[in-house]
Amino acid sequence: MKTTQEYLDIINDALLAVSYPVEPADLYDPVKYQLDMGGKRVRPLLALIACDMCGGCVDDVLPAATGIEIFHNFTLLHDDVMDKADIRRGRPTVHKAWSENVAILSGDAMQIISYQMIGRTPADVLKPVFDLFSATALQICEGQQYDMDFEGREDVTEDEYIGMIRLKTAVLLGCALKTGAYVAHAPQETADALYRFGENLGLAFQLQDDYLDVYGEPSKFGKKIGGDILNNKKTYMLISAMRMAEGEEREELARLLNSVSVSPEDKIKGVTSLYTSLGIDRLAMDKIDFYYRNALAEIEGIPGCEPLRLFASELMQRES
Amino acid sequence: MKTTQEYLDIINDALLAVSYPVEPADLYDPVKYQLDMGGKRVRPLLALIACDMCGGCVDDVLPAATGIEIFHNFTLLHDDVMDKADIRRGRPTVHKAWSENVAILSGDAMQIISYQMIGRTPADVLKPVFDLFSATALQICEGQQYDMDFEGREDVTEDEYIGMIRLKTAVLLGCALKTGAYVAHAPQETADALYRFGENLGLAFQLQDDYLDVYGEPSKFGKKIGGDILNNKKTYMLISAMRMAEGEEREELARLLNSVSVSPEDKIKGVTSLYTSLGIDRLAMDKIDFYYRNALAEIEGIPGCEPLRLFASELMQRES
Repeated sequence: MKTTQEYLDIINDALLAVSYPVEPADLYDPVKYQLDMGGKRVRPLLALIACDMCGGCVDDVLPAATGIEIFHNFTLLHDDVMDKADIRRGRPTVHKAWSENVAILSGDAMQIISYQMIGRTPADVLKPVFDLFSATALQICEGQQYDMDFEGREDVTEDEYIGMIRLKTAVLLGCALKTGAYVAHAPQETADALYRFGENLGLAFQLQDDYLDVYGEPSKFGKKIGGDILNNKKTYMLISAMRMAEGEEREELARLLNSVSVSPEDKIKGVTSLYTSLGIDRLAMDKIDFYYRNALAEIEGIPGCEPLRLFASELMQRES
Repeated sequence: MKTTQEYLDIINDALLAVSYPVEPADLYDPVKYQLDMGGKRVRPLLALIACDMCGGCVDDVLPAATGIEIFHNFTLLHDDVMDKADIRRGRPTVHKAWSENVAILSGDAMQIISYQMIGRTPADVLKPVFDLFSATALQICEGQQYDMDFEGREDVTEDEYIGMIRLKTAVLLGCALKTGAYVAHAPQETADALYRFGENLGLAFQLQDDYLDVYGEPSKFGKKIGGDILNNKKTYMLISAMRMAEGEEREELARLLNSVSVSPEDKIKGVTSLYTSLGIDRLAMDKIDFYYRNALAEIEGIPGCEPLRLFASELMQRES
């Protein structure tokens, strides 16, 4: 087994080694730009670790792991168009740096490139890897659609929210791990357990993202604190607050969410202090911990799962 | 061998048989809507005919043929967003009937569904079919990017235009035919010849599309005549006119293309009459005929190619 940094180097090298035609520049430059933005590379890391711990050859899973990371970046690219997001990881988003049309089309190309990488999986396991990837990719689209649907609804429940982030975020972590297991010819029950581990870890990961968006350390978080609050995003935290607030607090929350005269700073400050007085911070941390523990329980007893436990623990200690 | 109508029925049944989840409705309803718009189904027809004439089993190529048609419709869907087109085959485009975000995301889902269909190709030929499909899909993105690039350029040459429509339109016809050949285990040289037949037929087909946009019969063409002229689209016809017009005709063409005070009707009428007096109509028909003959030459001598010749001849006599 290797260290996280060693796996990361392998992945970043593989991403750099993907070769693109030079022309047309406005199709391929944005693809490179999007992949150069960096990121934690959580999904390909999980694929490599899973394959390695199951006794597989890391080189065999590397193309699929790269394809999964390219697909993930494609979804970020198109999501940024749909969300009209201007900044991603401190840089202008593709539709800002080029145009919306360029962002749509280069995203389409990234999706194809990700499938080309999946196609380089060893032939004896290509079929299950391909089928899992396609099913997962479609689930991610479903998750994004639900996310957009929720914007126009006031009555989103906690269960609906968890279902949405399961599709939008968690299943790709599960897919990455299971892909590693498939390539290593691990027993089906191990592959399934790793998938469920990834699914639960993904839920914890996304809930933590929501938490950090409110309570993160501005100098470390990498994006502006309070973005979800400003957008009235129906996160676990807002859904819980809407359910729990009563009397004056309920009125105050409604005023902050609906008033156009509140300044962005006051809105963030006001909603955050409501969250805190309602105990939403504690509630969110408990929920994160719940899914994190669920994740760990899934791999208990799987031989060689220590590096995965370690990686999950590192991930849960992140500040950005 | 079957009649064109019999093949068409098989394809339309297969498109209807693709099953989609019901929810989220705004993800899957637009997919069905886009595929329900109809169309000539040229690409899957070519795949079925090629497979059949090479002695393959039509059922074996049907999933890939369906995937190719779904992919083609995905490109139309996203192209309509990029071109801000309101109407497709007499109905509002997806981004008009729903929203731009819905169109982007449901297009993404269609791309995945097309890959799922490709993935159902018999295992012994899956790899070449999959690789050809991915390479072709990427070329189509390149073609669309060049098409958009050309909008802002006045100096597009005929060769560049032919290169662009080769990527945007012709290669998918070639891909469909070669897929049929692969599934039928035809010799490589037959597969290659069928590909070149499709490529040339695709060029003739697109040039004919450009021709019909100017000289088509309004009651039969299905969309408004003169759309390309109104958009100053750098078609083979406009590129030729810009190259050939001299003196007063050159000035008149420049005036029609650049003036904002000319009414749409006058612009279409003026440019069309310039085309005619420059002999562009004749030139375009010669060019169409050139690629059509090239296509036929590619399959001369291939046993059983008669249905393909017949289909090509029907296609070239279309009025819409």
